[in-house]
Amino acid sequence: MLAENSYGKSAIRLVKVLRPGERHEFRAVTIAIALEGDFEAAHVAGDNRAVLPTDTMKNTVYALAQDHFDGAIESFGLLLSGHFLDHNPRVNLARVALSEQPWERLVVAGRPHPHAFRRPGGERRLTRVNRTREGAAVEAGLEGLTVAKTSSSAFAGFLRDGYTTLKETHDRILATAIQASWVYAAPVDFDAAFAAIRQTLLDRFAGHQSASVQHTLYAMGESVLARHPEVTQVRLSLPNKHHLPVDLSPFGQENRNDIFVPTEEPYGLIEATIRRD
Amino acid sequence: MLAENSYGKSAIRLVKVLRPGERHEFRAVTIAIALEGDFEAAHVAGDNRAVLPTDTMKNTVYALAQDHFDGAIESFGLLLSGHFLDHNPRVNLARVALSEQPWERLVVAGRPHPHAFRRPGGERRLTRVNRTREGAAVEAGLEGLTVAKTSSSAFAGFLRDGYTTLKETHDRILATAIQASWVYAAPVDFDAAFAAIRQTLLDRFAGHQSASVQHTLYAMGESVLARHPEVTQVRLSLPNKHHLPVDLSPFGQENRNDIFVPTEEPYGLIEATIRRD
Amino acid sequence: MLAENSYGKSAIRLVKVLRPGERHEFRAVTIAIALEGDFEAAHVAGDNRAVLPTDTMKNTVYALAQDHFDGAIESFGLLLSGHFLDHNPRVNLARVALSEQPWERLVVAGRPHPHAFRRPGGERRLTRVNRTREGAAVEAGLEGLTVAKTSSSAFAGFLRDGYTTLKETHDRILATAIQASWVYAAPVDFDAAFAAIRQTLLDRFAGHQSASVQHTLYAMGESVLARHPEVTQVRLSLPNKHHLPVDLSPFGQENRNDIFVPTEEPYGLIEATIRRD
Amino acid sequence: MLAENSYGKSAIRLVKVLRPGERHEFRAVTIAIALEGDFEAAHVAGDNRAVLPTDTMKNTVYALAQDHFDGAIESFGLLLSGHFLDHNPRVNLARVALSEQPWERLVVAGRPHPHAFRRPGGERRLTRVNRTREGAAVEAGLEGLTVAKTSSSAFAGFLRDGYTTLKETHDRILATAIQASWVYAAPVDFDAAFAAIRQTLLDRFAGHQSASVQHTLYAMGESVLARHPEVTQVRLSLPNKHHLPVDLSPFGQENRNDIFVPTEEPYGLIEATIRRD
Repeated sequence: MLAENSYGKSAIRLVKVLRPGERHEFRAVTIAIALEGDFEAAHVAGDNRAVLPTDTMKNTVYALAQDHFDGAIESFGLLLSGHFLDHNPRVNLARVALSEQPWERLVVAGRPHPHAFRRPGGERRLTRVNRTREGAAVEAGLEGLTVAKTSSSAFAGFLRDGYTTLKETHDRILATAIQASWVYAAPVDFDAAFAAIRQTLLDRFAGHQSASVQHTLYAMGESVLARHPEVTQVRLSLPNKHHLPVDLSPFGQENRNDIFVPTEEPYGLIEATIRRD
Repeated sequence: MLAENSYGKSAIRLVKVLRPGERHEFRAVTIAIALEGDFEAAHVAGDNRAVLPTDTMKNTVYALAQDHFDGAIESFGLLLSGHFLDHNPRVNLARVALSEQPWERLVVAGRPHPHAFRRPGGERRLTRVNRTREGAAVEAGLEGLTVAKTSSSAFAGFLRDGYTTLKETHDRILATAIQASWVYAAPVDFDAAFAAIRQTLLDRFAGHQSASVQHTLYAMGESVLARHPEVTQVRLSLPNKHHLPVDLSPFGQENRNDIFVPTEEPYGLIEATIRRD
Repeated sequence: MLAENSYGKSAIRLVKVLRPGERHEFRAVTIAIALEGDFEAAHVAGDNRAVLPTDTMKNTVYALAQDHFDGAIESFGLLLSGHFLDHNPRVNLARVALSEQPWERLVVAGRPHPHAFRRPGGERRLTRVNRTREGAAVEAGLEGLTVAKTSSSAFAGFLRDGYTTLKETHDRILATAIQASWVYAAPVDFDAAFAAIRQTLLDRFAGHQSASVQHTLYAMGESVLARHPEVTQVRLSLPNKHHLPVDLSPFGQENRNDIFVPTEEPYGLIEATIRRD
Repeated sequence: MLAENSYGKSAIRLVKVLRPGERHEFRAVTIAIALEGDFEAAHVAGDNRAVLPTDTMKNTVYALAQDHFDGAIESFGLLLSGHFLDHNPRVNLARVALSEQPWERLVVAGRPHPHAFRRPGGERRLTRVNRTREGAAVEAGLEGLTVAKTSSSAFAGFLRDGYTTLKETHDRILATAIQASWVYAAPVDFDAAFAAIRQTLLDRFAGHQSASVQHTLYAMGESVLARHPEVTQVRLSLPNKHHLPVDLSPFGQENRNDIFVPTEEPYGLIEATIRRD
């Protein structure tokens, strides 16, 4: 009767300071670990003999981070998932998700400071590593990359029914918080690939002549596949962060497409996966 | 190259006041709609002719709520999903999720008030209806049902490795925010079934002699299946809301299992589906 | 050049379990402590000799809670503020704020359970104790008490100018999240007084024939002073949680004051103190 | 019996797009307005004749933004507060608070894009304008400027009592989310002054040899007064965003001041105003 099940530790927060010299590095990640396998006795009989405490998973993250977290989050995810699989014979799938909060070096007197940092907030880099006895799948991505464009976006020619009141527009604000994830065909230089793919997403968002969120989403995904042969598929989730033009006519003013109220609720949500043929 | 895709409107907030007489009803739900189907032209070519605006979906919710939202959220979800499927030939799957925020009647001078209400917060009742041309699947559930027990919970006899520092305990606080969803074999009296299943979850949580979160999760799921033949499977997601005993020994005091610090991060997360054989 | 200054520990979370017998109690509070006094040397010269670490304040809360937190949060606030003042000669003002998250006993098989609890969420009971060498001021209150009424609320006859588009209404939803605080003339039975004043606020909210939020706010405050002679003043902060009627006319339907969209932003905010003459 | 009272609209969200040419500007602010004055009749008698609806305040913001919001938020705050005072004889104090969410221009192909933007998140620029019939007080500031330094921060030599367990440290991470506000002696170039003062805060934070948060707070405030004669006082609120070294000794490792767990609760909170003599 016990079907799919998993257990693990979420929201493990880790900061590592690297001090190779005077110039320090400041890395901040949040990690979630989930293990799947043969845990029927724990569920049915309360037999914990095969249950590694989630507290131990947390400890393991800190202990292994000291010697092994000095590169991309994807690499550390591979290491962690391998560790849990290697040391727990009952486990057949180890899932590790990492979310990195970027910290930027402060600029003081025109120069990057060696040990002072600023957290810009908002955007996070993500990875999910799913590892079985057969191998590991690595998904990379980002979330919270909030962008807007004030030109080259329309929404017109759409289907209308008896409940449609939306006006067509040929010049609207298009704003979204990009959530993207993609799969690599093979191991790559994760940091370089991430930076390049992120820039492709931004370039295409900015440069696209948009007929809809769907249209721009597809263009962004297609560009990632076109420019980055190492990527086999990309998934995009784009909430439409609506900016509604305010009706100024009661005040004898015309809204010259310049005064908007941004709204949080409700919001359109457009999601798709684009995959190589 | 376009693979899975969907679009829709999320976070549509609806309040309906029913005034059958002096005694009003106050219903508050948040609704998300997502449609899947043949929308390749919209993505690839920016051709919106088959795209019903998400703004129209929102309008539809309000318009249909007036005559058709007077019972369980499951029933309204079935109606909404049917509407979108019936009126959009390109759509092959309509997903509707509803989340109800309960409002309780205020008690004034010892009596339930006819038109004043209080929102207790926290817990929400949920449903997800997935409807295709072949039929509808209804999932019911709840989230944010935060509970704790101060007795009859242990965690001992677990696996230890070199990173294990956790002490065994035979008397700990067990606290969680229950997230549960279940599937009905056939249509039922949704309100009655919901109330009964919710009570089963609470009864079992309170009465169980717990060896672990897994153990209690399974017992809760098993009880739902045992007492509610209309349910074919139940999924539970139980974050372990840790309450750590404070070390009072530096102050010459002994923690007699009475002083705790509740923590938000990190947290254990135990998830499983229990299904009939 | 150093003017007003304070330091302390915020968001100290404490859970205390009382086990006088089989029937346990579960208390959950969050505490903030701030001390003011002569701390110029710490600021100007980095001289920490008079600075009690905020970590020590946290420890003190846990240590003192074991023997001294068994009644109202106001009483524990008085004890804590007295402790810090008594043991730190440089301090001339100790401010302690406590926020209690209520937990209710679960009802199982029709009976209150001895050791299982549910957290309803939303509402919190508050107190602020400000203690100097001359004495202590105790403010009691609550926040997050979200209420709505579907009758007996109007807003009409208001001032209009060239930017006014709001329609008058004689039957609207009035909803708010009550934040209230009040001052006692002298020590009282804090738990009994709190429960009675809270009920007065709810009674008056429900029963008032409201011409505006201001009007209801004043009526609530006046009732507290009228019914509770131990209170010298009451402050209310009432956000107007707007429920906007949806325009259904484009769909050939009339909104019979039954379909609303609740909005979070923007919101009216009405605040006032009502004091005895 | 009615004492202090105010009413207004909060969380008014405004986006303005400026299109002086091909190169657009994207401004996003959130505005709160509160009016104080003679509103006794509204409270006591439900007489709304002097009550300008808060909905009108919102409309006014949008209407006036079109022609008058093209510079610093301080300037728009002065204009708005003046408008409400001029047009409402019963009002004797108009408080306007503005919070600007910065949006940065996207860089595409190495060049700033003319109409695509990114919201970095986190930090916000603030102003509060309080205007009476006698004049206006302008406070400028910021919040959410989260910073950390991995060197030059100690906390030692502090007061110890029976509840003190904190270890002294001569090399800790110092992290905080700067909230700062300051008052100008006279009108200035608000944008230039803001940028310069913000940089002073960062320079001093980074360069200071810190003995405590208090010590660094004071140094930051003193630098603002020293370098910016137009400022008469500065207030700083610095939460101590603790980074606790993880004890790795159970795993046979030594924490070489490199592995930390950042915690949200509890947190130290240090606040002070520094004023010219």
